[in-house]
Amino acid sequence: MSKPKLRIGLIGTGFMGKAHVFGFTSAPRVFELPFDLELHTIADITPDAAERARVTLGFAHATADWRTIMADPAVDLVSITAPNALHKEMSLAAIAAGKHVYCEKPLAPMAADALEMTLAAEAAGVKTQVGFNYLCNPMLALAREMIAAGELGEIRGYRGLHAEDYMADANGPYTFRHDPAGGGALADIGSHALATAEFLCGPISRVMGDVVTMIAERPDGRGGRKAVMVDDVGRAFLRFENGATGSIEGNWIATGRKMQHDFEVYGTKGALAFSQEHFNVLNYFSTTDAKGRQGFRRIEAGPDHAPYGLFCVAAGHQIGFNDLKAIEVAGYINAIAGKAPEPFNFRKGLRIQKLVETIHASSKAGAWMDIA
Amino acid sequence: MSKPKLRIGLIGTGFMGKAHVFGFTSAPRVFELPFDLELHTIADITPDAAERARVTLGFAHATADWRTIMADPAVDLVSITAPNALHKEMSLAAIAAGKHVYCEKPLAPMAADALEMTLAAEAAGVKTQVGFNYLCNPMLALAREMIAAGELGEIRGYRGLHAEDYMADANGPYTFRHDPAGGGALADIGSHALATAEFLCGPISRVMGDVVTMIAERPDGRGGRKAVMVDDVGRAFLRFENGATGSIEGNWIATGRKMQHDFEVYGTKGALAFSQEHFNVLNYFSTTDAKGRQGFRRIEAGPDHAPYGLFCVAAGHQIGFNDLKAIEVAGYINAIAGKAPEPFNFRKGLRIQKLVETIHASSKAGAWMDIA
Amino acid sequence: MSKPKLRIGLIGTGFMGKAHVFGFTSAPRVFELPFDLELHTIADITPDAAERARVTLGFAHATADWRTIMADPAVDLVSITAPNALHKEMSLAAIAAGKHVYCEKPLAPMAADALEMTLAAEAAGVKTQVGFNYLCNPMLALAREMIAAGELGEIRGYRGLHAEDYMADANGPYTFRHDPAGGGALADIGSHALATAEFLCGPISRVMGDVVTMIAERPDGRGGRKAVMVDDVGRAFLRFENGATGSIEGNWIATGRKMQHDFEVYGTKGALAFSQEHFNVLNYFSTTDAKGRQGFRRIEAGPDHAPYGLFCVAAGHQIGFNDLKAIEVAGYINAIAGKAPEPFNFRKGLRIQKLVETIHASSKAGAWMDIA
Amino acid sequence: MSKPKLRIGLIGTGFMGKAHVFGFTSAPRVFELPFDLELHTIADITPDAAERARVTLGFAHATADWRTIMADPAVDLVSITAPNALHKEMSLAAIAAGKHVYCEKPLAPMAADALEMTLAAEAAGVKTQVGFNYLCNPMLALAREMIAAGELGEIRGYRGLHAEDYMADANGPYTFRHDPAGGGALADIGSHALATAEFLCGPISRVMGDVVTMIAERPDGRGGRKAVMVDDVGRAFLRFENGATGSIEGNWIATGRKMQHDFEVYGTKGALAFSQEHFNVLNYFSTTDAKGRQGFRRIEAGPDHAPYGLFCVAAGHQIGFNDLKAIEVAGYINAIAGKAPEPFNFRKGLRIQKLVETIHASSKAGAWMDIA
Ligand SMILES: NC(=O)C1=CN([C@@H]2O[C@H](COP(=O)(O)OP(=O)(O)OC[C@H]3O[C@@H](n4cnc5c(N)ncnc54)[C@H](O)[C@@H]3O)[C@@H](O)[C@H]2O)C=CC1
Ligand SMILES: NC(=O)C1=CN([C@@H]2O[C@H](COP(=O)(O)OP(=O)(O)OC[C@H]3O[C@@H](n4cnc5c(N)ncnc54)[C@H](O)[C@@H]3O)[C@@H](O)[C@H]2O)C=CC1
Ligand SMILES: NC(=O)C1=CN([C@@H]2O[C@H](COP(=O)(O)OP(=O)(O)OC[C@H]3O[C@@H](n4cnc5c(N)ncnc54)[C@H](O)[C@@H]3O)[C@@H](O)[C@H]2O)C=CC1
Ligand SMILES: NC(=O)C1=CN([C@@H]2O[C@H](COP(=O)(O)OP(=O)(O)OC[C@H]3O[C@@H](n4cnc5c(N)ncnc54)[C@H](O)[C@@H]3O)[C@@H](O)[C@H]2O)C=CC1
Repeated sequence: MSKPKLRIGLIGTGFMGKAHVFGFTSAPRVFELPFDLELHTIADITPDAAERARVTLGFAHATADWRTIMADPAVDLVSITAPNALHKEMSLAAIAAGKHVYCEKPLAPMAADALEMTLAAEAAGVKTQVGFNYLCNPMLALAREMIAAGELGEIRGYRGLHAEDYMADANGPYTFRHDPAGGGALADIGSHALATAEFLCGPISRVMGDVVTMIAERPDGRGGRKAVMVDDVGRAFLRFENGATGSIEGNWIATGRKMQHDFEVYGTKGALAFSQEHFNVLNYFSTTDAKGRQGFRRIEAGPDHAPYGLFCVAAGHQIGFNDLKAIEVAGYINAIAGKAPEPFNFRKGLRIQKLVETIHASSKAGAWMDIA
Repeated sequence: MSKPKLRIGLIGTGFMGKAHVFGFTSAPRVFELPFDLELHTIADITPDAAERARVTLGFAHATADWRTIMADPAVDLVSITAPNALHKEMSLAAIAAGKHVYCEKPLAPMAADALEMTLAAEAAGVKTQVGFNYLCNPMLALAREMIAAGELGEIRGYRGLHAEDYMADANGPYTFRHDPAGGGALADIGSHALATAEFLCGPISRVMGDVVTMIAERPDGRGGRKAVMVDDVGRAFLRFENGATGSIEGNWIATGRKMQHDFEVYGTKGALAFSQEHFNVLNYFSTTDAKGRQGFRRIEAGPDHAPYGLFCVAAGHQIGFNDLKAIEVAGYINAIAGKAPEPFNFRKGLRIQKLVETIHASSKAGAWMDIA
Repeated sequence: MSKPKLRIGLIGTGFMGKAHVFGFTSAPRVFELPFDLELHTIADITPDAAERARVTLGFAHATADWRTIMADPAVDLVSITAPNALHKEMSLAAIAAGKHVYCEKPLAPMAADALEMTLAAEAAGVKTQVGFNYLCNPMLALAREMIAAGELGEIRGYRGLHAEDYMADANGPYTFRHDPAGGGALADIGSHALATAEFLCGPISRVMGDVVTMIAERPDGRGGRKAVMVDDVGRAFLRFENGATGSIEGNWIATGRKMQHDFEVYGTKGALAFSQEHFNVLNYFSTTDAKGRQGFRRIEAGPDHAPYGLFCVAAGHQIGFNDLKAIEVAGYINAIAGKAPEPFNFRKGLRIQKLVETIHASSKAGAWMDIA
Repeated sequence: MSKPKLRIGLIGTGFMGKAHVFGFTSAPRVFELPFDLELHTIADITPDAAERARVTLGFAHATADWRTIMADPAVDLVSITAPNALHKEMSLAAIAAGKHVYCEKPLAPMAADALEMTLAAEAAGVKTQVGFNYLCNPMLALAREMIAAGELGEIRGYRGLHAEDYMADANGPYTFRHDPAGGGALADIGSHALATAEFLCGPISRVMGDVVTMIAERPDGRGGRKAVMVDDVGRAFLRFENGATGSIEGNWIATGRKMQHDFEVYGTKGALAFSQEHFNVLNYFSTTDAKGRQGFRRIEAGPDHAPYGLFCVAAGHQIGFNDLKAIEVAGYINAIAGKAPEPFNFRKGLRIQKLVETIHASSKAGAWMDIA
């Protein structure tokens, strides 16, 4: 007995476009999914780029006009991996066409836009997903579960980071990530740190931001230089609703760092320390271990930490970055089938935008601000 | 213009069966392959198991009789992921039918069998591959390249390991891995350590083995206990043709270890240290670094280390265990198309068997032995 | 030919008292010092405690009245390791008696007191030292030297920590460290993080503080509970005069952490990462390393990193916490002899107090503040 | 009431000479010792060297003839830190004079000599100590205690190392460590690995050696080159009396390694992993930890791990290499007073020599050998 089909239209064929395809093709082999996923249409800016991607990535159709996808009743789900500034227009068009929307983060440059998108999706009743893939790590699920179960006691302190160095070279060109509307390190990767913070410790209620531009101008790609208005480093002090306090930092000029999406959580009975540099590991300290035998415990991902076991029956073998995308896809597809809540829908994406904007506003004001 | 098809028959649907499917479906998205891969027929012991796997893993046909695959002229390539004792019979049948054979390691329980299989494959002109997937790691390619380029100077010393704990529990049942013919820790995972040693440092010429059984009997699955004749730990001292000396250990009762496939290589000008526990990292020491600034350098896998960049354009994001299988598949498929030599063919698999058997023989004799 | 004598009076025989004695007895064996150090008089609260310490620690005289030390013209140098609230009175008395003063950190509970002490010492022309021992680590000297020499390029970002868990247990009693005047995590250990930050990157010009109390009351030692007014966690955003931005955190309720005095410094050409948990190691990333060979380099302390070689002629053997105190003593004794500037005198200790107080004030005001 | 005096004569003022002085001066501050230690006479080859050391290291007398020390009835204990070839003659002279002897490792170049020394010491009733200082680490005491208490269950497997790179440069000159009588990597540092192996797991009963020379000749210091007859790497397979099997390696050409005195012990219920590169840490895996929460636990040295607390009241602050020597001295001095057994006397030193020689003999014979 065959499953219903879910036909996918994908916009963008860069880093994330490929990662989405990876997710769509890998998830069905790994998970028992309620739909057969079909790679229907792929869109990029030029016909050439689209056609090349169609062949490599295995889609049936290609187009240089993403609106074709919206117009095609065959397409059930639209993946949006184009630059941030296009997320809104594309999402609204897809929603209007009654399609489910899987949009890369950030949901939109501005929270107001993200809100509009969220309301539209909710009104239309389509299922949505935003690509905060680091949350899909089994070790983050474990961390969240341990915290929720009280294994750390009451949470008191949090330190979160997302630091990389892809913008550390001052001669790196101006890109869409430098767009004054919604660009910058805080929005681009600090947002991951914020998502993880709330994923683990629950809602942030107040922030104090410190958002700085360290590289004032960059090559504009036409021989000149262009002023950069967005931040290279975004920091924030945090207050959580549960009473904990903490901080995060998003930093894209952290020379030498490739994937420092790290956190430490301190509770009354235990602590967790994690680095995405070794993301198949969660370090756990328990005050209930015997005296003289206490220490941070290096838990390696294994079949005890769902859904790791679906990828590999043996612990310690490790899943990779793309596998996170497969987990993301699986959760989303199950939500589309109504079998589970949306793992990280537009409303949650909107939430991150609000946090980012409030941190920006707080930094500008030089004052603490409540999360509205 | 579409590519020629390569139709795949797969035998076995366990740990490695799934990993092969992962490789077959992932490789074409990641690599530019010369064939379209088609998941044609899957075989397991019972019709039910085969059919269930067919659906989950996405094959067109299922069978409870693997000989069906051999008889089917549509199948071009046979993947063998059944237990070791079956590798020979299945491989010979596939070769006789003119099919390419991708066989899991160990190639066969005994070197004599592996030789027969190798000669048959060579005579038939089919392309072969044995599943020593850890060699597919971009960081191992880097290590090999650095050694070959003389970046470490002359190699003097080597330490290799493959230790896990999946057999550490004495109440774990007797399995095919305990089969006196070709079973044991040295053959099962010590073989990986041997493959890595030769991959990096070239041929081993002499060995002195130390192969021990620590758990004398195991539950036989029918309420009784069965004597175990195979080794739990296999060690060897090594002489390499290049003059280096070293050691390896295969150990499946290393309590707490999940994936300690590690090595250290010491040369006159530098050294490398690696652990599969963090397999996206290679540690490199260079004596040519400035005085007072020397130290092991933690190189994180990135686009500079092919083929990592095909999986992810950003360094440090990390590939997973299954991705190694995609790399293995890609190399093999290219070899089938004649675009590259076979990465690790039956002759190389035979070589590992010879090393394993010589170590066993040496251990029994209590004396050094040449690799024939 | 014998050296002039320098006679030492020590107040306090606890954790730091013993560490000072260690420094005084070890430094002369390790370093070529301009004075013979003589352990003259030791003071504690009771005659018994003082006498016991005299015997164990090897002093000639003991007293239960620290003023005896000040009155004794034989004493040249007074070490003050009594609780913070006593630092001022003791220091001023020693200065008035023309003695050199080696005072544990924090110099005084309040910056105003620290200023008074500093001015008194400067007026009297005595040499002073404050016990910021982590700065005495050869690897911190290396880090500072590398930064000063431009090996990291221009410094852009800084993250500093000092986190431990000695106050994490809410049932731990109220101590002098909870004194509203100058107590709290920021003053107690955040001060170390601030000292390291300025040691490496130069003066901090502006701060935004976030200082929180998480454990509202503690056992008062008499069966009741006492309200705690001081901070358990003190955080700050930082602006450095050199243009870099950063943050620090002092945290004494970081469950599981014993010695997380860590920092990361990011420059345009390189980066450093350090943890006091492995304080004989400095991790160094250089963008000038060859492509594909870049990574954080684990530099182990050795004879190339003065004064490590005076403790041990072989790299990697490691110095310990107490050795830092020996280095501190040696630097100070050389300063007393006029052979070198005071490594960390009262004016520098005052500086740290100012930073701490400004962070507190900023936190209270919820606004950025300049360092006066 | 003052303690009896113990007057010390020290021979040799190099690396270990200084370390012994460190031990003698530090131990009494840290430990409650039954004697007052007095640095009486120091000897080196020339009067100048001896006098310089006397001043720096704080001895009362200096001599260029070590026999002066033996002849002096005031001296109670003789520390021997001269090159290996002199250990026997010096020890026998000291024993003949009724003095306690603290001799650096190896006890003597040859086991026969070591036996003679041991018998002489035992006959004379003097107390002896050999400098296997790595055993003095509180974390090794912890490891031994955990094993003895059955916390790891039955011990099955062992891997030990001592690798450094101080002889890796082929242009490093010929030294006393290359002396055909008792020199070589196995004797020099492999001996540490053997001492640790037996310290933790009890007696080794059988060995199979693999001892190799990789650098055939070295500069002789007079413009020529001299053939090297001793090993650069010494490996051995081990059988322990308790049924465990394992291996060790001593390696002084391990490029980049400064202090790889490491071990891993695998038992039925747990495992330990240790590296001297971070010797204040012991990693502990327990199979009794909760499912999904298992992992190697990073135990940091603290007051729970005697005698760490005597050095520092706070965990994680770390002791250094020289502190190990202070612990060694304290244990020995207590033994001299009859308060405890000798921690590592000549008979134990002899034992290590036997192991070393048997490994050499086994390697030469290419066959397993019993430890006589
Ligand atoms: N979840 C995560 O960890 C990550 C998320 N992202 C997000 O993914 C999105 C894309 O980033 P990357 O893939 O890194 O960028 P990219 O530059 O590699 O790819 C963007 C793609 O969009 C295409 N595109 C641009 N305009 C288009 C149009 N009008 N119609 C169709 N296609 C168009 C481009 O041609 C390109 O193929 C961004 O929103 C980014 O924030 C990016 C990296 C990581
Ligand atoms: N490359 C690597 O890293 C690894 C390689 N292996 C190798 O892969 C092979 C399989 O191991 P696993 O997948 O772990 O075992 P498994 O027990 O998980 O799977 C074996 C599969 O073969 C099937 N099978 C058994 N007899 C069959 C028959 N007559 N006809 C058809 N199917 C049959 C079983 O039903 C099962 O589906 C072994 O040779 C093993 O050494 C295993 C694990 C890792
Ligand atoms: N540099 C560093 O890393 C550290 C510095 N410290 C500083 O050292 C100082 C002492 O701290 P600890 O040694 O940890 O405290 P502690 O409580 O172990 O020792 C304090 C000592 O002072 C004595 N004392 C108290 N009042 C006295 C008086 N009126 N006269 C004579 N002696 C008196 C006490 O009896 C006790 O012996 C503090 O200022 C603290 O901030 C403490 C720990 C680490
Ligand atoms: N326990 C450990 O971890 C270590 C032990 N050792 C052992 O310590 C011993 C000495 O080694 P190092 O201190 O590294 O050597 P070194 O070369 O630094 O010092 C040897 C000292 O002995 C002196 N000496 C030589 N002949 C003498 C004589 N006839 N009379 C008086 N003094 C004489 C030399 O002048 C020099 O001061 C060796 O046996 C070595 O194996 C060395 C290093 C580490």
